[in-house]
Amino acid sequence: MRPDYGLYLVTDRALCLGRDLVDVVAAAVRGGVTMVQLREKDCDTREFVALARRLKQMLEPHRVPLLINDRVDVALACGADGVHVGQSDMHPKDVRTLMGGKGLLGLSVETMEHVREAETLGVDYLGVGPVYATSTKPDHSEPWGLDGLRRVREACSLPLVGIGSVNAENVASVMRQGMDGVAVVSALCSADSPEQAARHMFASVESVRRNG
Amino acid sequence: MRPDYGLYLVTDRALCLGRDLVDVVAAAVRGGVTMVQLREKDCDTREFVALARRLKQMLEPHRVPLLINDRVDVALACGADGVHVGQSDMHPKDVRTLMGGKGLLGLSVETMEHVREAETLGVDYLGVGPVYATSTKPDHSEPWGLDGLRRVREACSLPLVGIGSVNAENVASVMRQGMDGVAVVSALCSADSPEQAARHMFASVESVRRNG
Repeated sequence: MRPDYGLYLVTDRALCLGRDLVDVVAAAVRGGVTMVQLREKDCDTREFVALARRLKQMLEPHRVPLLINDRVDVALACGADGVHVGQSDMHPKDVRTLMGGKGLLGLSVETMEHVREAETLGVDYLGVGPVYATSTKPDHSEPWGLDGLRRVREACSLPLVGIGSVNAENVASVMRQGMDGVAVVSALCSADSPEQAARHMFASVESVRRNG
Repeated sequence: MRPDYGLYLVTDRALCLGRDLVDVVAAAVRGGVTMVQLREKDCDTREFVALARRLKQMLEPHRVPLLINDRVDVALACGADGVHVGQSDMHPKDVRTLMGGKGLLGLSVETMEHVREAETLGVDYLGVGPVYATSTKPDHSEPWGLDGLRRVREACSLPLVGIGSVNAENVASVMRQGMDGVAVVSALCSADSPEQAARHMFASVESVRRNG
């Protein structure tokens, strides 16, 4: 089955307003999220694996793929559908080897040099970010902007997902730069109703995918 | 080949006094270190893998096994000889599965309950610590003391390695509690001469192993 990158939720427990992460993700999935990435940067491995397994169990019946940020060990332990890595995480070629050739592999790209290199690494899609300046990742690099997304689209044949301060207001503009999807953190994790927020954003994604 | 736990170096880059970690470990191995565990808690995965590969390449000709703390992904990527986990790290049974049944698996035990449970987990050895109160791990649990090591020895048939403020002065006392080896951090990483410090400590380990 061809993966649907349309509305891609990247988790951040700190942004869930004290709610259980699995509940927040479940609500967002009811609203239309098509893919989930579990990102945990300061979590003990045992807790990370337990959380990943709970998410995987919840997502499985919905056929929504679960990707794990950075940690191939956690991905393998929970039976995730893939791994997403950044430029300081495990090298994509090493990830492929450890995953036994199976699963989705995503890579974050912050420069055109990253984009050009990515085409040679056998990754499945690129996370292009940050689209806008973002507070979720305070140490982020120079934002791409809408023009930057367009340049990446023209330079690269891989599926592209825009990430970085994508929200209900700008999702259509981001999609119109030729993106295959948008990755969203706080606009879903911190929404009063993650389900309604996801439904609203997914409608925008679908509208651009159908009508441009 | 039966692993030799005699003088087991656990790395801490922050304690290497600005020296390159691989150089420090190489010197300690010349002095008699029999096993090395790479422990990195705040390191990007790509850097962790690169460091692990450098260490593995240096240790291989000496036939000194390299274990990786916590990170099975890093262990698999660098071809390490095993993994060491604590009680908050990946569960030993999950580690075994991911390692494909190969390699050494060590587990840290802080209580007698951990020791009793460990016998059912298929681990190869236990790290019993802290022996003494230690500044290397400020959040450590109640020290075992020499009496505690003795109680673990009597309760458990697995190879045991005492860890936590083991140094040249107390190494013989620790070994005499029936330990198969001692794990050392700062007494080697921060030594003026890691080679001489290792030689001195290894002589004490050997003396107790031969003469009691």
